[in-house]
Amino acid sequence: MELSVLILAAGKGTRMKSVLPKVMQPLASRPLLAHVLKTAHDLESANTLVVYGHGGDVVRNHFAGENLGWVLQAEQKGTGHAVQVALPQLPATGKTLILYGDVPLTSVQTLQLLMDQVRDDNSLGLLSVHLDNPTGYGRIVRDAAGKVQRIVEQKDASDTEKLIREVNTGILCVPNRHLHDWLPNLGNSNAQGEYYLTDIIAMAVAAGVAVRTTHPAHAWEVEGVNDKLQLATLERVYQRQQAETLMRAGVTLLDPARLDVRGVLSCGLDVEIDVNSVFEGTVTLGDNVRIGPNCVLKDCTIGAGSVIRANSVIEESVIGQRVQAGPFARIRPGSTLADDVHIGNFVEVKNSRFDQGAKANHLAYIGDADIGARANIGAGTITCNYDGAFKHRTVVGEDAFIGSNSSLIAPVKIGQGATTGAGSAISKDVPPAALAVARGLQRNIENWDRPRKPGK
Amino acid sequence: MELSVLILAAGKGTRMKSVLPKVMQPLASRPLLAHVLKTAHDLESANTLVVYGHGGDVVRNHFAGENLGWVLQAEQKGTGHAVQVALPQLPATGKTLILYGDVPLTSVQTLQLLMDQVRDDNSLGLLSVHLDNPTGYGRIVRDAAGKVQRIVEQKDASDTEKLIREVNTGILCVPNRHLHDWLPNLGNSNAQGEYYLTDIIAMAVAAGVAVRTTHPAHAWEVEGVNDKLQLATLERVYQRQQAETLMRAGVTLLDPARLDVRGVLSCGLDVEIDVNSVFEGTVTLGDNVRIGPNCVLKDCTIGAGSVIRANSVIEESVIGQRVQAGPFARIRPGSTLADDVHIGNFVEVKNSRFDQGAKANHLAYIGDADIGARANIGAGTITCNYDGAFKHRTVVGEDAFIGSNSSLIAPVKIGQGATTGAGSAISKDVPPAALAVARGLQRNIENWDRPRKPGK
Amino acid sequence: MELSVLILAAGKGTRMKSVLPKVMQPLASRPLLAHVLKTAHDLESANTLVVYGHGGDVVRNHFAGENLGWVLQAEQKGTGHAVQVALPQLPATGKTLILYGDVPLTSVQTLQLLMDQVRDDNSLGLLSVHLDNPTGYGRIVRDAAGKVQRIVEQKDASDTEKLIREVNTGILCVPNRHLHDWLPNLGNSNAQGEYYLTDIIAMAVAAGVAVRTTHPAHAWEVEGVNDKLQLATLERVYQRQQAETLMRAGVTLLDPARLDVRGVLSCGLDVEIDVNSVFEGTVTLGDNVRIGPNCVLKDCTIGAGSVIRANSVIEESVIGQRVQAGPFARIRPGSTLADDVHIGNFVEVKNSRFDQGAKANHLAYIGDADIGARANIGAGTITCNYDGAFKHRTVVGEDAFIGSNSSLIAPVKIGQGATTGAGSAISKDVPPAALAVARGLQRNIENWDRPRKPGK
Repeated sequence: MELSVLILAAGKGTRMKSVLPKVMQPLASRPLLAHVLKTAHDLESANTLVVYGHGGDVVRNHFAGENLGWVLQAEQKGTGHAVQVALPQLPATGKTLILYGDVPLTSVQTLQLLMDQVRDDNSLGLLSVHLDNPTGYGRIVRDAAGKVQRIVEQKDASDTEKLIREVNTGILCVPNRHLHDWLPNLGNSNAQGEYYLTDIIAMAVAAGVAVRTTHPAHAWEVEGVNDKLQLATLERVYQRQQAETLMRAGVTLLDPARLDVRGVLSCGLDVEIDVNSVFEGTVTLGDNVRIGPNCVLKDCTIGAGSVIRANSVIEESVIGQRVQAGPFARIRPGSTLADDVHIGNFVEVKNSRFDQGAKANHLAYIGDADIGARANIGAGTITCNYDGAFKHRTVVGEDAFIGSNSSLIAPVKIGQGATTGAGSAISKDVPPAALAVARGLQRNIENWDRPRKPGK
Repeated sequence: MELSVLILAAGKGTRMKSVLPKVMQPLASRPLLAHVLKTAHDLESANTLVVYGHGGDVVRNHFAGENLGWVLQAEQKGTGHAVQVALPQLPATGKTLILYGDVPLTSVQTLQLLMDQVRDDNSLGLLSVHLDNPTGYGRIVRDAAGKVQRIVEQKDASDTEKLIREVNTGILCVPNRHLHDWLPNLGNSNAQGEYYLTDIIAMAVAAGVAVRTTHPAHAWEVEGVNDKLQLATLERVYQRQQAETLMRAGVTLLDPARLDVRGVLSCGLDVEIDVNSVFEGTVTLGDNVRIGPNCVLKDCTIGAGSVIRANSVIEESVIGQRVQAGPFARIRPGSTLADDVHIGNFVEVKNSRFDQGAKANHLAYIGDADIGARANIGAGTITCNYDGAFKHRTVVGEDAFIGSNSSLIAPVKIGQGATTGAGSAISKDVPPAALAVARGLQRNIENWDRPRKPGK
Repeated sequence: MELSVLILAAGKGTRMKSVLPKVMQPLASRPLLAHVLKTAHDLESANTLVVYGHGGDVVRNHFAGENLGWVLQAEQKGTGHAVQVALPQLPATGKTLILYGDVPLTSVQTLQLLMDQVRDDNSLGLLSVHLDNPTGYGRIVRDAAGKVQRIVEQKDASDTEKLIREVNTGILCVPNRHLHDWLPNLGNSNAQGEYYLTDIIAMAVAAGVAVRTTHPAHAWEVEGVNDKLQLATLERVYQRQQAETLMRAGVTLLDPARLDVRGVLSCGLDVEIDVNSVFEGTVTLGDNVRIGPNCVLKDCTIGAGSVIRANSVIEESVIGQRVQAGPFARIRPGSTLADDVHIGNFVEVKNSRFDQGAKANHLAYIGDADIGARANIGAGTITCNYDGAFKHRTVVGEDAFIGSNSSLIAPVKIGQGATTGAGSAISKDVPPAALAVARGLQRNIENWDRPRKPGK
């Protein structure tokens, strides 16, 4: 049966205390809804519909590039109502998986098992979960043969029913034919005056449609997010899953509880990640890469054997093999470091290329520069790449030696094998193998009377 | 009834293995005793007495500015003895809440409930707690009607009594009249030869005074600190409470277990705090502020929409709206950053003012300076603010452009719209719109024979 | 009885997904096997044998300096086989403790208790442990009198036997005489065709040798490492133990869950360690030392009263008393800071000596230098210590004042009390009390037409 996925995402989320619609709250840097959409995608949904409401434009605009159907639920009158407004966009046949934009971590495996229960119009899949403390949730009532009979809400449950630990998650897989039949018949004669999707279970039983249940592997797969505590709880669950996946693949994590992966982290063999590092976007680490404590890496590739030391920040850059960086290295977007490059402490590299074996080991700013192979950039070197209006490029040749505390006033070229004297401001090109010096002559004035503090 | 609070704070705390008296050990950067005094203050105590002993001067001096009564317990002869020595300073009427200087986290709500039990001289309030493992604690023995009869210590308890899970916390609320009556009659015929405050429970029962119990919401509210493990445990409990309070107010915490608030942190709407940051003193974050990982913020205000990136340290400063700082920004006391200011990596700002839109993006030291609106401070700029005896001020005009690697030798003024050449040492004022250059002429010496390593 | 320790360390550890042999995987920066060897050493083993196999050379080479016997188990045919191949190197008398190279955290106390069970050839010591979930482990089957009868593996256990929660750890202490007798008689008629050491329990029972059991204080003492998840779990157990030991000794840890000690950390009185710091090698902290958050300290000594602020990295250096360093201090190998030295933010010190009271407070690189007492190194100062081939030394005299943004071109000496002008490149020695200036004259060019962005 062709699969539609219908995602209820119209809730406001008042308890989030945020301007952002609830489903846009970030988990691992992506909106909650993005996680559910990813799941729908992985399930090969032929038709994914999102029922939106509060903050609708923000939600629609964020996902504008994706192939989704959007259904406006202008008023929120319950989960049944949400599905009702989506009915016109649901195919007449096939089956629909109903998910929630604020339940981000249901696994594809769990949902596949659920969908496997629904192979024709004679069955309906219901995801239920056993909780140690089911208080507050709708209980799954079964008959003596174990068949699901109905779902009873907390407030309507008898004392015996309250002992039932199997509860409704709200996640269903239903033949479209039945949704089209049943949804118009939902009533709202209850305290809230809302239409409850749950009521279709009784309709299914009445119609002789088998209600087949499956369960998630973990209770957190069906946990929803209503406030920032629950958001933080699921953030840590998600991160723990990332950590376990990495460790199973052979990555050494010094502390799985102090790892944050907000995107995709791919690792080679024998990678070691020290405590408290954060990975954002797409990060690829080659074999034997070591990442020190307290680093932040975003959208970058690190080649085999490279070592990133403590407290370094790297963004949108490509780093070769056997590179040494940090501690306190700051590599900004657009940088390419070839193999065997060294970037030391308090060095900022931006939109620059370092060829093989080039080094900038101490307190330097290298922006908009091309540094040749084996060139040595002295401590305190600054590329003066900005004239107040335009950025200019600095080119340093192979084997050049830039003296400490040099100012390289771009556009400027330092030739192959050239040398600049320490403390020089270099504004003109330096020929290959030449020495350039640009500094004042030193005068020593004897017995100078330095300012002194009163009484000294 | 008027409330007195009597805090027993004379213990030495040998197991802390510290020179500091036990009640001075810090929890969230404040002495344990300060937490209890804050609670007394919040309870609107009319009369707060501290019984001190070990390290007394350190304790008294630390709290010298507060309106407290101090009672010296020169010898420690038990909790009953501690209250005895305080009796002369207790009013004849009203009621007294007895707290402990090493039990820092009892909530005001819990204590208010306890005090509500004591509305006249016919009752006494006893805070008890149910423990899964009550071993070692005094058990609350009740009669068949549930009335408290006495407290039996572990060593005196029968096997049946040992099964009682309700234990004494030591925290009591007692009409002063009874304290004056009963305390002089305490005996010390026990193994330790000490006077136990607990014995007044039996006296109350004998006198027909009702012993009314209440319980804390959490067992940790009545946990005491005797060693550094317990101190660390309560530190984390305290921090978890701070985190939950923030999250309930709508703050997004990437990891509640990696947040430290040592003071007061106030947050606007949609604030996001990344992992592992530390807040000290009084910190205020405006709407939409984002704090990156591994930051330390102390006594500062950050305006709406500002972003503080990873590994930044900010102290005693006021930061405007939409400011971008870090990673690796270091903003020291006395700094004011107006709206839209940018402070980049490895930049130190001290006792300086940045007007709107001014920028210092890379490796710079800006101390004792006033930077005009939209001024651009080049990479590597250093304000030379100290002559060895005195600090001097640097003034940079609006729209000025300070070339990279400049030295601004204070006192010095750079005029509005002026420019300094890269690598210049500027010791004289620069008129508005002028260019100032102060550097040696560049000479290129061809075919220079740079020192080489032997064999190269 | 003389003690031999036999460590089975030949396993490949396929699930580690690593090039490194399993027993070489690091826990707290040392190979798993190193922890077991340390235990053997602490037990005063007279004869320590390691059975190795996979990656043997790597293992042997790493421990080449230690007094160990090495036994090659070329094929892995079970634990019994591993002991068989070691038999020729085991003395005829005495007793042997059998440990595992991938079970790193068994305590000396636990093993001492086990060995105490074996005082002559009439007994055998078996370490067993009670697990809540014993599934998968060999159960200890006892007779009605409580005597161990045999060990039954999971797959062979009856339903009743499966209920037994006492399981075999594999750790044994056996009289050598019996090992020589029994091991040749082990069979391998089982599904895997392996020789199981466990089978000697039945042999002992048959021979009337008493099987005496003891248990570890904690279940993690007998946990093995087969994958990176288990490795991370034991890493955190190990670190928690380190933290507890430090706290019991009086160290204040702001968060015991965020401390990493990979080596030996010794602390004086009233030391406070903030969150997320990492200690490697041998680190000694004097009385009242405070370590800020996110620091990394390796092989260094910090004197009493010194404060290391946030985000600092210190390696192989000796730091005196009352030193202030950081935030963002980077002290590299070979540095010695005398008492009262200040090293501020973004300052790198390498292979240098600071005498008492000397200061380098802002953005500086001090390499291969001797800084005299009370000398002040201005912001942005760079020692130009490298000429492309050789390192040279900078010597700054007592009370000297190095102006901001100076370049000190080594070899160079700045005399006692001398001063250098800000922004100077100093290449020649400066006499005591002299002022040295080396910079271009400042020219101001009025109405300079700075480059402008198009349209501005």
